[in-house]
Amino acid sequence: MKKEVRIIEVGLRDGLQNEKKNLSVPTKLQLAKRLEQAGLRWIELGAYVSPHWVPQMKDTDKIVRSHLRKNASTAQYSVLVPNQKGMERAVASGITEIAVFTAASESFTQKNINCSIRQSFERFRPVVRMAHDHNIKVRAYISTAFGCPYEGKVRASKVKTIAGKLFDIGAYEVSVGDTIGIAHPLQCEKMAQLLLKDFSAKKIAFHLHDTRGMALANIVKSLEAGIRIFDTSIGGLGGCPYAKGASGNVATEDVVNMLHAMGFTTRIDLEKLIQTSKWLQKHFDRPLNSKVAKLALA
Amino acid sequence: MKKEVRIIEVGLRDGLQNEKKNLSVPTKLQLAKRLEQAGLRWIELGAYVSPHWVPQMKDTDKIVRSHLRKNASTAQYSVLVPNQKGMERAVASGITEIAVFTAASESFTQKNINCSIRQSFERFRPVVRMAHDHNIKVRAYISTAFGCPYEGKVRASKVKTIAGKLFDIGAYEVSVGDTIGIAHPLQCEKMAQLLLKDFSAKKIAFHLHDTRGMALANIVKSLEAGIRIFDTSIGGLGGCPYAKGASGNVATEDVVNMLHAMGFTTRIDLEKLIQTSKWLQKHFDRPLNSKVAKLALA
Repeated sequence: MKKEVRIIEVGLRDGLQNEKKNLSVPTKLQLAKRLEQAGLRWIELGAYVSPHWVPQMKDTDKIVRSHLRKNASTAQYSVLVPNQKGMERAVASGITEIAVFTAASESFTQKNINCSIRQSFERFRPVVRMAHDHNIKVRAYISTAFGCPYEGKVRASKVKTIAGKLFDIGAYEVSVGDTIGIAHPLQCEKMAQLLLKDFSAKKIAFHLHDTRGMALANIVKSLEAGIRIFDTSIGGLGGCPYAKGASGNVATEDVVNMLHAMGFTTRIDLEKLIQTSKWLQKHFDRPLNSKVAKLALA
Repeated sequence: MKKEVRIIEVGLRDGLQNEKKNLSVPTKLQLAKRLEQAGLRWIELGAYVSPHWVPQMKDTDKIVRSHLRKNASTAQYSVLVPNQKGMERAVASGITEIAVFTAASESFTQKNINCSIRQSFERFRPVVRMAHDHNIKVRAYISTAFGCPYEGKVRASKVKTIAGKLFDIGAYEVSVGDTIGIAHPLQCEKMAQLLLKDFSAKKIAFHLHDTRGMALANIVKSLEAGIRIFDTSIGGLGGCPYAKGASGNVATEDVVNMLHAMGFTTRIDLEKLIQTSKWLQKHFDRPLNSKVAKLALA
């Protein structure tokens, strides 16, 4: 059983975009730097989306340019890009990876980005083309892959079909998301088994939210089925966009702690990560959502 | 694979004894009643311990007597009993089950009850005898079975030896406790495999704390290895006695939600349980620790 796990840190994007409190540009820059110093090697820095819809991401360009300028980095940075306009900004910024997104549920796609799943592909086809023209890697998210807030159940076979199409258009990795944190361990195991029959474990990430407390349990069964890439968020930043006050992203600290305890390697320095979480806590007026960090702070 | 799981509700004892805020006698009585109405069939009501050491348990006698008088109950109630004096109170109260406790670590036993593990057995031997003389069932806890705040690692073989001795003196069930929430999923699996080689799954409970967020993951691997009895606490009542502000008991709501999602049965009505948690939340000025209840409240 391969023991190395890749952690994709999404706190600065998926985390902060669901936080009421925004962080200043210097604080975000310091967070990125601290995460990298703690050993995180894949970090989402922000999103080139409309500041009207997601005001927390309005300073993404500053973050990206300043961070890339100051850090001769060993980490891979990425930004979320929804359309061609965002892609133009991404190209100009010097970023070397972007992420596009769709969903496994039609109703969610309609409500979230006002188009069908098929139309979402049409939208990001030119984005992906432009990315490849500039040697920018493309990651792709599939939201609501384990359940939809509007439709309920989502078939795993549908997720597999969409993942296949994303690889076809040139995504190097697909992140399969439990957007509402409804997945359970056996469901994750089955999803992993189905996807890894056709796709390499080097290309499939699981993005599991902790809304019902099951994220670590889901990770355990996903690991058993062969998944080795997980998206996580420092301090569990980011709630559930469909239920204010509920938990969302699983905390990087808690995932890394469990992985190390189980004998997996991440090349992340848990102690430095917890120190980063302690420092980050000062910028929020509610306790962050990592139990491991809470214990360290207690 | 047997699909029925027994949940032992310990919120009124292990939960409240680690909460700063105590509940009034009427509130505790209402909580016990609501838990029973939600389908809980094994409920710890309190502890016959010194009110000097554990003031939250000082009204246990009132709770037990009043509850047993008012409810022609289908549930099995229990109280924790540390010594002969406590046992006399238990006999007088009419309770039909008690729990005794020891630990798997010598330093913990010394610091916690000021004696060796062997001496702890000598202490509760007359307690168990008196219980049996009065047809009172005896449950036994083994604390720090997965790790000790003073000694660190604890050998699973030691836990097995102690469990064997507890059965020998007449305990009908042994609850194996991760007092500091340090266990990881593979450790739980191994512990379960070791214990279930010698003892029936009908007699071994796991009492897993969520201090590092791993309790549900630990339950999943314990279930796979055959464990079918878990101690849980409504709203995750009770913190970590060794780190104020950190999480302790795993929340009954979250466990039941996951078990049902995975196809296990508990005979517990999750909706009623969540309503109980909502009601209980009003009595605390901090959010309770169940993610499922938080989601319902959001």
